[in-house]
Amino acid sequence: MYSFSAGNSMLCRNFLQPRIIQASYKTHKEGIACNTKVPRNVNMEKLQSAYLFPEISMREVQHIEKYPDAKLISLGIGDTTEPIPDIIASSMANYARSLSTAEGYSGYGAEQGNKALRKAIAETFYRDFQVKETEVFVSDGSQCDITRLQLLLGSNVSIAVQDPSFPAYVDSSVIIGQAGDFEDKTGMYGNIQYMKCRPKNNFFPDLATASRSDIIFFCSPNNPTGHAATRQELEQLVRFAKENGSIIIFDSAYAAYISDDSPRSIFEIPGAREVAIEVSSFSKFAGFTGIRLGWTVVPEELSFSNGFPVINDFNRIVCTCFNGASNIAQAGGLACLSPEGFASVHSIIKCYKENAKILLDTFSSLGLKVYGGENAPYLWVHFPGSKSWDIFTEILEKTHIITVPGSGFGPEGEEFMRISAFGHRESIIEAARRLGNLYP
Amino acid sequence: MYSFSAGNSMLCRNFLQPRIIQASYKTHKEGIACNTKVPRNVNMEKLQSAYLFPEISMREVQHIEKYPDAKLISLGIGDTTEPIPDIIASSMANYARSLSTAEGYSGYGAEQGNKALRKAIAETFYRDFQVKETEVFVSDGSQCDITRLQLLLGSNVSIAVQDPSFPAYVDSSVIIGQAGDFEDKTGMYGNIQYMKCRPKNNFFPDLATASRSDIIFFCSPNNPTGHAATRQELEQLVRFAKENGSIIIFDSAYAAYISDDSPRSIFEIPGAREVAIEVSSFSKFAGFTGIRLGWTVVPEELSFSNGFPVINDFNRIVCTCFNGASNIAQAGGLACLSPEGFASVHSIIKCYKENAKILLDTFSSLGLKVYGGENAPYLWVHFPGSKSWDIFTEILEKTHIITVPGSGFGPEGEEFMRISAFGHRESIIEAARRLGNLYP
Repeated sequence: MYSFSAGNSMLCRNFLQPRIIQASYKTHKEGIACNTKVPRNVNMEKLQSAYLFPEISMREVQHIEKYPDAKLISLGIGDTTEPIPDIIASSMANYARSLSTAEGYSGYGAEQGNKALRKAIAETFYRDFQVKETEVFVSDGSQCDITRLQLLLGSNVSIAVQDPSFPAYVDSSVIIGQAGDFEDKTGMYGNIQYMKCRPKNNFFPDLATASRSDIIFFCSPNNPTGHAATRQELEQLVRFAKENGSIIIFDSAYAAYISDDSPRSIFEIPGAREVAIEVSSFSKFAGFTGIRLGWTVVPEELSFSNGFPVINDFNRIVCTCFNGASNIAQAGGLACLSPEGFASVHSIIKCYKENAKILLDTFSSLGLKVYGGENAPYLWVHFPGSKSWDIFTEILEKTHIITVPGSGFGPEGEEFMRISAFGHRESIIEAARRLGNLYP
Repeated sequence: MYSFSAGNSMLCRNFLQPRIIQASYKTHKEGIACNTKVPRNVNMEKLQSAYLFPEISMREVQHIEKYPDAKLISLGIGDTTEPIPDIIASSMANYARSLSTAEGYSGYGAEQGNKALRKAIAETFYRDFQVKETEVFVSDGSQCDITRLQLLLGSNVSIAVQDPSFPAYVDSSVIIGQAGDFEDKTGMYGNIQYMKCRPKNNFFPDLATASRSDIIFFCSPNNPTGHAATRQELEQLVRFAKENGSIIIFDSAYAAYISDDSPRSIFEIPGAREVAIEVSSFSKFAGFTGIRLGWTVVPEELSFSNGFPVINDFNRIVCTCFNGASNIAQAGGLACLSPEGFASVHSIIKCYKENAKILLDTFSSLGLKVYGGENAPYLWVHFPGSKSWDIFTEILEKTHIITVPGSGFGPEGEEFMRISAFGHRESIIEAARRLGNLYP
């Protein structure tokens, strides 16, 4: 009989252990046949089992077993650590409490989100860029919206991603059936265009040599490189999309971290309304990683090749496959966009950016070339000639610090490490101290 | 240039107006070409535009325009109306407030849900049925989980639904590409098996004549008929699935409304662990329609034809396409499952069931045959020889009461009306008074 060690193998973010699952599968195949006749989805079969963050978690667990007394510091997964400002937490608490009163209770909200929040998002982030509140769809986070956009697009479109990039674009593409087969030799899926983003091209793809894709996933400020595309670069990108009849899915989840005049939204670029969708989030903006709130903007002008408005299909997806973000989270989102809430959120962002500066100085002092960190909560540190998983192991062994190997974000991430600046200040200072001694 | 009247056309639950969207599309096609070259997803094209609840909402709006002084009562969409018990609202409020403290703040949780909540769900609902906490995946609602299950299954499986049934099964099937073409003549999609559930077969499909499908969506207590399948019937269903190597996706969202000894979970049936998944929800159980919380149980034994455990793929989908339910909602869910919370939730369910009894007596007194209402918050009222949209209009015109035409749930819903028992008692009493005079 099939035996499945589900205990700590099911916690994906923290403890998923792909190898155990793989072993179970074998046990099952060799065991008594009690299988259904339902075929496994071929797209699921194509997903690579060693998903980045679970692999890191597994190594973290092994490290703790090996060094039970070590004080581990995580500069790995980009998870917020600072408490929510009181004004925002209170507004959610008050909303939650009011749900026990006849006046305050409400059932289903609109799937697209509370009207006041949609309006506040449009006015706060897009006031000068013609985005209407009816084009804003409130969600439970941008990763979830990326999947809903993939559902909308279906399997019959071609996609391009930045290389390196956040794994959710590629993985959702594999699940929906756009990606083709994974090629071990290249570390790439056959039908996905990987647009190289390296220091020598200022982390912006060479569009002169890029081929056409239906969809271009583009994240700025970028996860993992921390690079924010300049206005001129985004103008190029919009022009490229227009010339090719492509749709840009622009991920602005880290826009609040921009310090210079890089655009915070693709809709700052003239003409973007005809070629772009923007997904964004309260997660890194307001520490809502556990509260779950985000949004997607689909402009009315954006249409498929047959003229059908994309917004209509997205609305249908949202109404059929989603039931709205939690009303309590939405109350919190509204508080974030009040003048006082907005200021308090930005004081936390400032704190994370100071963390980034501390870490940037530390790695620079080691003689390493460090990118990012100024417009994003991530540093992208170059270790020329090294394998990033080797660097991961070296840093972990020498300093008990978790980082993220760049190769987990795509082939072009090799030789790089992503360093997260989320963390309490005392941890960051301690991490900086340990890292300063990395090469004594 | 394309013009899109997005104002009230984007509120799906309340105000979506499919006709306006269709008109915009035409305008756009005839206008200046600024389309992308991205093909519209053929699956989205196959979705029928007249989605049930938006159509009802549109008629509601028209009715209000026609009778601005009428006091409309909705027995339509099944939306909870009674405040959340104080103990539950307080626990969410306290949790939200604690997010502003260093001790209380937490970022990303496990995608599969808070361990304590998974354990409480397993112990509360499945104590005697061998469900482990690691088989429980907490979600933001069962409708969302149905889509995630469809993503997991992909386009290459065949599905069966009860006829009538909740539209989300069919619509998600169309979006993922399983359904085939819609046939106007029959009102059915070519590749979906519609299993007739009528009074003469006790609303249970005739499995002797049913053909094999990979997936069988089965909702009990049923939305819309209000019928709870008996133990013997569910034993038949499990046997049928085993014989055919099918997977049952069992929707138990209304299980808390069962008054008799009908099974509240498919896992009460021996052998179900090898052929069934269960989706369920806090929405109708605890009035969490706006708070968003549900769960799905995937047993370890359930496997695809190649022996691969379904739970592994579901775990991967949850980790890639979802980021966990809101932590505040999960705190509320845990409070619902405390002894005091559980008792208070059930006192509200009792209240809705009394509403159902009032409405059942009213329709029966009109000489109509009424089904459901005893194990579910819905009545299924038969109007022999009538078109259900005609009855909808007649009831609305004569009594200013919104109902749901049975035909919206599938061809076998024709001649029936679904009546929701959610509502404040005074509205239900007033609705009963008006309905009592329907045929003076």
